[in-house]
Amino acid sequence: MGQISNFTFDEITIGQTATYRRRIGEREIAFFAAASGDVNPLHLDAGYAAGTRFGERIAHGMLSAGLISAAVALVLPGPGSVYVSQSLRFLRPVHVDDELTANMTVTAKRDDKHFVTLDCEVVNQDGKAVVSGEAVIMAPTEKMTVETPALPAFSTTESQA
Amino acid sequence: MGQISNFTFDEITIGQTATYRRRIGEREIAFFAAASGDVNPLHLDAGYAAGTRFGERIAHGMLSAGLISAAVALVLPGPGSVYVSQSLRFLRPVHVDDELTANMTVTAKRDDKHFVTLDCEVVNQDGKAVVSGEAVIMAPTEKMTVETPALPAFSTTESQA
Repeated sequence: MGQISNFTFDEITIGQTATYRRRIGEREIAFFAAASGDVNPLHLDAGYAAGTRFGERIAHGMLSAGLISAAVALVLPGPGSVYVSQSLRFLRPVHVDDELTANMTVTAKRDDKHFVTLDCEVVNQDGKAVVSGEAVIMAPTEKMTVETPALPAFSTTESQA
Repeated sequence: MGQISNFTFDEITIGQTATYRRRIGEREIAFFAAASGDVNPLHLDAGYAAGTRFGERIAHGMLSAGLISAAVALVLPGPGSVYVSQSLRFLRPVHVDDELTANMTVTAKRDDKHFVTLDCEVVNQDGKAVVSGEAVIMAPTEKMTVETPALPAFSTTESQA
Protein backbone atom coordinates (compact mmCIF):
# COMPACT_ATOMS: atom_id res chain seq x y z
CA MET A 1 0.00 0.00 0.00
CA GLY A 2 1.06 3.55 -0.60
CA GLN A 3 -0.35 6.94 -1.40
CA ILE A 4 -0.25 9.00 -4.56
CA SER A 5 -1.21 12.63 -5.06
CA ASN A 6 -2.09 14.47 -8.23
CA PHE A 7 -1.33 17.77 -9.90
CA THR A 8 -4.44 19.74 -10.80
CA PHE A 9 -4.81 21.49 -14.15
CA ASP A 10 -4.15 24.84 -12.45
CA GLU A 11 -1.00 23.55 -10.77
CA ILE A 12 0.50 22.10 -13.96
CA THR A 13 3.02 24.31 -15.75
CA ILE A 14 4.48 24.17 -19.24
CA GLY A 15 7.90 22.53 -18.96
CA GLN A 16 6.98 20.54 -15.84
CA THR A 17 8.56 17.07 -15.89
CA ALA A 18 8.04 13.70 -14.26
CA THR A 19 9.66 10.30 -14.49
CA TYR A 20 8.48 6.74 -13.89
CA ARG A 21 10.91 3.83 -13.77
CA ARG A 22 10.35 0.11 -14.12
CA ARG A 23 12.45 -2.94 -14.83
CA ILE A 24 10.92 -5.14 -17.52
CA GLY A 25 11.73 -8.67 -16.41
CA GLU A 26 10.43 -12.11 -17.30
CA ARG A 27 7.45 -11.63 -15.01
CA GLU A 28 6.34 -8.31 -16.49
CA ILE A 29 6.49 -9.79 -19.99
CA ALA A 30 4.51 -12.86 -18.91
CA PHE A 31 1.95 -10.67 -17.12
CA PHE A 32 1.50 -8.50 -20.21
CA ALA A 33 1.06 -11.63 -22.35
CA ALA A 34 -1.55 -12.91 -19.90
CA ALA A 35 -3.35 -9.55 -19.86
CA SER A 36 -3.45 -8.99 -23.62
CA GLY A 37 -3.39 -12.57 -24.87
CA ASP A 38 -0.34 -11.75 -27.02
CA VAL A 39 1.59 -15.02 -26.89
CA ASN A 40 3.77 -14.27 -29.91
CA PRO A 41 6.84 -16.48 -29.27
CA LEU A 42 9.15 -13.51 -29.95
CA HIS A 43 8.29 -12.40 -26.41
CA LEU A 44 8.12 -15.76 -24.64
CA ASP A 45 10.26 -18.39 -26.39
CA ALA A 46 14.02 -17.82 -26.18
CA GLY A 47 14.77 -20.51 -28.74
CA TYR A 48 12.41 -19.04 -31.31
CA ALA A 49 13.57 -15.48 -30.61
CA ALA A 50 17.21 -16.46 -31.17
CA GLY A 51 16.36 -17.17 -34.82
CA THR A 52 14.70 -13.79 -35.45
CA ARG A 53 16.17 -10.44 -36.49
CA PHE A 54 16.25 -9.51 -32.79
CA GLY A 55 18.43 -12.47 -31.74
CA GLU A 56 16.76 -12.75 -28.35
CA ARG A 57 13.38 -12.26 -26.68
CA ILE A 58 12.02 -8.73 -26.67
CA ALA A 59 9.23 -7.18 -24.62
CA HIS A 60 5.89 -6.29 -26.18
CA GLY A 61 6.06 -2.69 -27.47
CA MET A 62 2.74 -1.90 -25.83
CA LEU A 63 4.23 -2.90 -22.46
CA SER A 64 6.77 -0.09 -22.79
CA ALA A 65 3.87 2.18 -23.71
CA GLY A 66 2.28 1.01 -20.46
CA LEU A 67 5.01 2.88 -18.57
CA ILE A 68 3.78 6.09 -20.17
CA SER A 69 0.23 5.38 -19.08
CA ALA A 70 1.45 4.46 -15.59
CA ALA A 71 3.35 7.76 -15.43
CA VAL A 72 0.16 9.62 -16.34
CA ALA A 73 -2.00 7.66 -13.89
CA LEU A 74 0.38 7.71 -10.94
CA VAL A 75 2.60 10.78 -11.27
CA LEU A 76 1.69 13.53 -13.76
CA PRO A 77 -1.12 14.52 -13.60
CA GLY A 78 -1.84 11.45 -11.42
CA PRO A 79 -5.20 10.36 -9.93
CA GLY A 80 -8.26 11.90 -11.59
CA SER A 81 -6.62 12.04 -15.02
CA VAL A 82 -8.65 11.01 -18.06
CA TYR A 83 -6.70 9.71 -21.05
CA VAL A 84 -7.71 11.44 -24.30
CA SER A 85 -5.11 10.28 -26.82
CA GLN A 86 -1.61 8.94 -27.23
CA SER A 87 0.80 8.65 -30.13
CA LEU A 88 3.60 6.08 -30.02
CA ARG A 89 6.70 5.47 -32.10
CA PHE A 90 8.52 2.22 -31.42
CA LEU A 91 12.21 3.02 -31.84
CA ARG A 92 14.27 0.19 -30.39
CA PRO A 93 13.63 -3.28 -28.96
CA VAL A 94 13.39 -3.78 -25.19
CA HIS A 95 15.17 -6.84 -23.86
CA VAL A 96 14.49 -8.92 -20.76
CA ASP A 97 15.59 -7.07 -17.61
CA ASP A 98 16.02 -3.70 -19.31
CA GLU A 99 15.58 -0.83 -16.86
CA LEU A 100 13.19 1.64 -18.47
CA THR A 101 12.44 5.25 -17.54
CA ALA A 102 9.46 7.16 -18.89
CA ASN A 103 10.34 10.85 -19.12
CA MET A 104 7.32 13.13 -19.35
CA THR A 105 7.35 16.88 -20.12
CA VAL A 106 4.32 19.17 -20.28
CA THR A 107 4.34 21.02 -23.61
CA ALA A 108 0.88 22.62 -23.78
CA LYS A 109 -2.27 23.39 -21.78
CA ARG A 110 -5.75 24.03 -23.15
CA ASP A 111 -7.85 25.95 -20.65
CA ASP A 112 -11.34 25.30 -22.02
CA LYS A 113 -11.15 21.51 -21.72
CA HIS A 114 -8.45 21.19 -19.04
CA PHE A 115 -6.33 19.28 -21.53
CA VAL A 116 -2.58 19.01 -21.02
CA THR A 117 -0.18 17.74 -23.68
CA LEU A 118 2.91 15.80 -22.60
CA ASP A 119 5.95 14.84 -24.60
CA CYS A 120 6.75 11.23 -23.67
CA GLU A 121 10.01 9.35 -24.08
CA VAL A 122 10.84 5.94 -22.66
CA VAL A 123 14.59 5.32 -22.47
CA ASN A 124 16.56 2.21 -21.52
CA GLN A 125 19.47 1.89 -19.07
CA ASP A 126 21.84 3.15 -21.79
CA GLY A 127 19.79 6.31 -22.27
CA LYS A 128 18.56 5.15 -25.68
CA ALA A 129 14.95 5.95 -26.57
CA VAL A 130 12.81 2.85 -27.03
CA VAL A 131 9.39 4.53 -27.39
CA SER A 132 8.45 8.17 -27.91
CA GLY A 133 5.18 9.95 -28.40
CA GLU A 134 2.72 12.52 -27.20
CA ALA A 135 -0.08 12.17 -24.63
CA VAL A 136 -3.17 14.34 -24.30
CA ILE A 137 -4.78 14.13 -20.87
CA MET A 138 -7.82 15.79 -19.32
CA ALA A 139 -6.23 16.88 -16.07
CA PRO A 140 -8.04 16.72 -12.73
CA THR A 141 -9.45 19.95 -11.30
CA GLU A 142 -9.62 18.68 -7.71
CA LYS A 143 -6.56 18.04 -5.60
CA MET A 144 -6.54 14.52 -4.22
CA THR A 145 -4.42 11.94 -2.47
CA VAL A 146 -5.48 8.32 -2.88
CA GLU A 147 -4.40 4.99 -1.42
CA THR A 148 -2.88 2.64 -3.97
CA PRO A 149 -4.25 -0.88 -3.59
CA ALA A 150 -2.07 -3.90 -3.06
CA LEU A 151 -1.94 -6.19 -6.05
CA PRO A 152 -2.70 -9.86 -5.65
CA ALA A 153 0.58 -11.77 -5.44
CA PHE A 154 0.68 -14.06 -8.43
CA SER A 155 2.70 -17.23 -8.19
CA THR A 156 3.71 -19.31 -11.15
CA THR A 157 2.47 -22.82 -10.64
CA GLU A 158 2.59 -24.76 -13.88
CA SER A 159 2.18 -24.39 -17.61
CA GLN A 160 -1.30 -24.14 -19.00
CA ALA A 161 -2.35 -26.81 -21.43
CA MET B 1 -0.06 -24.54 -27.40
CA GLY B 2 -1.27 -23.52 -30.81
CA GLN B 3 0.02 -22.33 -34.13
CA ILE B 4 -0.23 -18.96 -35.83
CA SER B 5 0.61 -18.04 -39.41
CA ASN B 6 1.35 -14.65 -40.90
CA PHE B 7 0.45 -12.66 -43.98
CA THR B 8 3.48 -11.45 -45.90
CA PHE B 9 3.70 -7.93 -47.29
CA ASP B 10 3.00 -9.25 -50.79
CA GLU B 11 -0.08 -11.17 -49.61
CA ILE B 12 -1.63 -8.21 -47.79
CA THR B 13 -4.24 -6.25 -49.72
CA ILE B 14 -5.81 -2.85 -49.15
CA GLY B 15 -9.15 -3.40 -47.46
CA GLN B 16 -8.11 -6.69 -45.83
CA THR B 17 -9.58 -7.08 -42.36
CA ALA B 18 -8.93 -9.06 -39.19
CA THR B 19 -10.45 -9.26 -35.74
CA TYR B 20 -9.14 -10.20 -32.31
CA ARG B 21 -11.48 -10.73 -29.37
CA ARG B 22 -10.81 -10.76 -25.64
CA ARG B 23 -12.85 -10.47 -22.47
CA ILE B 24 -11.32 -7.99 -20.04
CA GLY B 25 -12.01 -9.51 -16.63
CA GLU B 26 -10.61 -8.98 -13.15
CA ARG B 27 -7.58 -11.10 -13.96
CA GLU B 28 -6.63 -9.25 -17.13
CA ILE B 29 -6.81 -5.93 -15.28
CA ALA B 30 -4.72 -7.28 -12.39
CA PHE B 31 -2.18 -8.74 -14.84
CA PHE B 32 -1.87 -5.41 -16.65
CA ALA B 33 -1.40 -3.62 -13.33
CA ALA B 34 1.31 -6.12 -12.39
CA ALA B 35 3.01 -5.72 -15.78
CA SER B 36 3.00 -1.93 -15.90
CA GLY B 37 3.01 -1.08 -12.20
CA ASP B 38 -0.11 1.05 -12.72
CA VAL B 39 -1.95 0.50 -9.42
CA ASN B 40 -4.24 3.51 -9.77
CA PRO B 41 -7.23 2.54 -7.58
CA LEU B 42 -9.64 3.48 -10.38
CA HIS B 43 -8.71 0.12 -11.91
CA LEU B 44 -8.41 -2.01 -8.77
CA ASP B 45 -10.50 -0.64 -5.90
CA ALA B 46 -14.28 -0.89 -6.40
CA GLY B 47 -15.01 1.35 -3.40
CA TYR B 48 -12.76 4.12 -4.65
CA ALA B 49 -14.00 3.79 -8.23
CA ALA B 50 -17.63 4.13 -7.09
CA GLY B 51 -16.86 7.68 -6.02
CA THR B 52 -15.32 8.73 -9.34
CA ARG B 53 -16.91 10.10 -12.50
CA PHE B 54 -16.94 6.53 -13.84
CA GLY B 55 -19.00 5.09 -10.97
CA GLU B 56 -17.22 1.74 -11.12
CA ARG B 57 -13.82 0.24 -11.88
CA ILE B 58 -12.56 0.67 -15.43
CA ALA B 59 -9.77 -1.11 -17.28
CA HIS B 60 -6.49 0.64 -18.06
CA GLY B 61 -6.81 2.32 -21.47
CA MET B 62 -3.48 0.86 -22.55
CA LEU B 63 -4.84 -2.64 -21.89
CA SER B 64 -7.47 -2.08 -24.59
CA ALA B 65 -4.67 -0.82 -26.81
CA GLY B 66 -2.95 -4.13 -26.06
CA LEU B 67 -5.68 -5.87 -28.04
CA ILE B 68 -4.60 -3.89 -31.10
CA SER B 69 -0.99 -4.95 -30.61
CA ALA B 70 -2.10 -8.56 -30.05
CA ALA B 71 -4.10 -8.42 -33.30
CA VAL B 72 -0.98 -7.21 -35.12
CA ALA B 73 1.30 -9.79 -33.51
CA LEU B 74 -0.99 -12.79 -33.83
CA VAL B 75 -3.32 -12.20 -36.79
CA LEU B 76 -2.56 -9.38 -39.27
CA PRO B 77 0.23 -9.33 -40.33
CA GLY B 78 1.10 -11.83 -37.53
CA PRO B 79 4.52 -13.33 -36.71
CA GLY B 80 7.47 -11.43 -38.14
CA SER B 81 5.74 -8.05 -37.86
CA VAL B 82 7.72 -5.08 -36.55
CA TYR B 83 5.74 -2.31 -34.87
CA VAL B 84 6.62 1.13 -36.24
CA SER B 85 4.00 3.44 -34.74
CA GLN B 86 0.51 3.59 -33.28
CA SER B 87 -1.96 6.37 -32.61
CA LEU B 88 -4.68 5.89 -29.99
CA ARG B 89 -7.81 7.80 -29.06
CA PHE B 90 -9.52 6.70 -25.87
CA LEU B 91 -13.24 7.11 -26.53
CA ARG B 92 -15.18 5.29 -23.80
CA PRO B 93 -14.39 3.50 -20.54
CA VAL B 94 -14.03 -0.30 -20.48
CA HIS B 95 -15.70 -2.02 -17.52
CA VAL B 96 -14.86 -5.30 -15.83
CA ASP B 97 -15.93 -8.27 -17.99
CA ASP B 98 -16.52 -6.21 -21.13
CA GLU B 99 -16.09 -8.30 -24.27
CA LEU B 100 -13.82 -6.37 -26.61
CA THR B 101 -13.16 -6.86 -30.31
CA ALA B 102 -10.27 -5.22 -32.14
CA ASN B 103 -11.27 -4.61 -35.76
CA MET B 104 -8.31 -4.03 -38.09
CA THR B 105 -8.48 -2.86 -41.72
CA VAL B 106 -5.51 -2.36 -44.05
CA THR B 107 -5.67 1.16 -45.51
CA ALA B 108 -2.26 1.61 -47.17
CA LYS B 109 0.91 -0.21 -48.26
CA ARG B 110 4.31 1.32 -48.82
CA ASP B 111 6.44 -0.88 -51.07
CA ASP B 112 9.91 0.51 -50.37
CA LYS B 113 9.84 -0.22 -46.64
CA HIS B 114 7.21 -2.99 -46.55
CA PHE B 115 5.09 -0.77 -44.31
CA VAL B 116 1.36 -1.43 -44.00
CA THR B 117 -1.06 0.99 -42.36
CA LEU B 118 -4.07 -0.38 -40.48
CA ASP B 119 -7.13 1.42 -39.22
CA CYS B 120 -7.81 0.05 -35.73
CA GLU B 121 -11.01 0.16 -33.73
CA VAL B 122 -11.71 -1.65 -30.48
CA VAL B 123 -15.43 -2.02 -29.77
CA ASN B 124 -17.28 -3.38 -26.74
CA GLN B 125 -20.12 -5.94 -26.63
CA ASP B 126 -22.59 -3.15 -27.51
CA GLY B 127 -20.64 -2.27 -30.65
CA LYS B 128 -19.48 1.04 -29.15
CA ALA B 129 -15.93 2.11 -29.94
CA VAL B 130 -13.70 2.29 -26.86
CA VAL B 131 -10.36 2.93 -28.59
CA SER B 132 -9.53 3.88 -32.16
CA GLY B 133 -6.31 4.66 -33.97
CA GLU B 134 -3.90 3.82 -36.73
CA ALA B 135 -1.03 1.32 -36.73
CA VAL B 136 1.99 1.33 -39.02
CA ILE B 137 3.70 -2.05 -39.22
CA MET B 138 6.72 -3.33 -41.13
CA ALA B 139 5.18 -6.48 -42.52
CA PRO B 140 7.09 -9.75 -42.80
CA THR B 141 8.45 -10.78 -46.18
CA GLU B 142 8.75 -14.48 -45.33
CA LYS B 143 5.76 -16.74 -44.85
CA MET B 144 5.90 -18.51 -41.51
CA THR B 145 3.89 -20.59 -39.09
CA VAL B 146 5.05 -20.57 -35.48
CA GLU B 147 4.12 -22.40 -32.30
CA THR B 148 2.59 -20.18 -29.64
CA PRO B 149 4.08 -20.91 -26.23
CA ALA B 150 2.00 -21.85 -23.20
CA LEU B 151 1.89 -19.12 -20.61
CA PRO B 152 2.80 -19.90 -17.04
CA ALA B 153 -0.42 -20.44 -15.08
CA PHE B 154 -0.52 -17.73 -12.46
CA SER B 155 -2.40 -18.40 -9.27
CA THR B 156 -3.41 -15.68 -6.84
CA THR B 157 -2.01 -16.55 -3.46
CA GLU B 158 -2.13 -13.55 -1.17
CA SER B 159 -1.85 -9.78 -1.19
CA GLN B 160 1.58 -8.23 -1.43
CA ALA B 161 2.68 -6.03 1.44
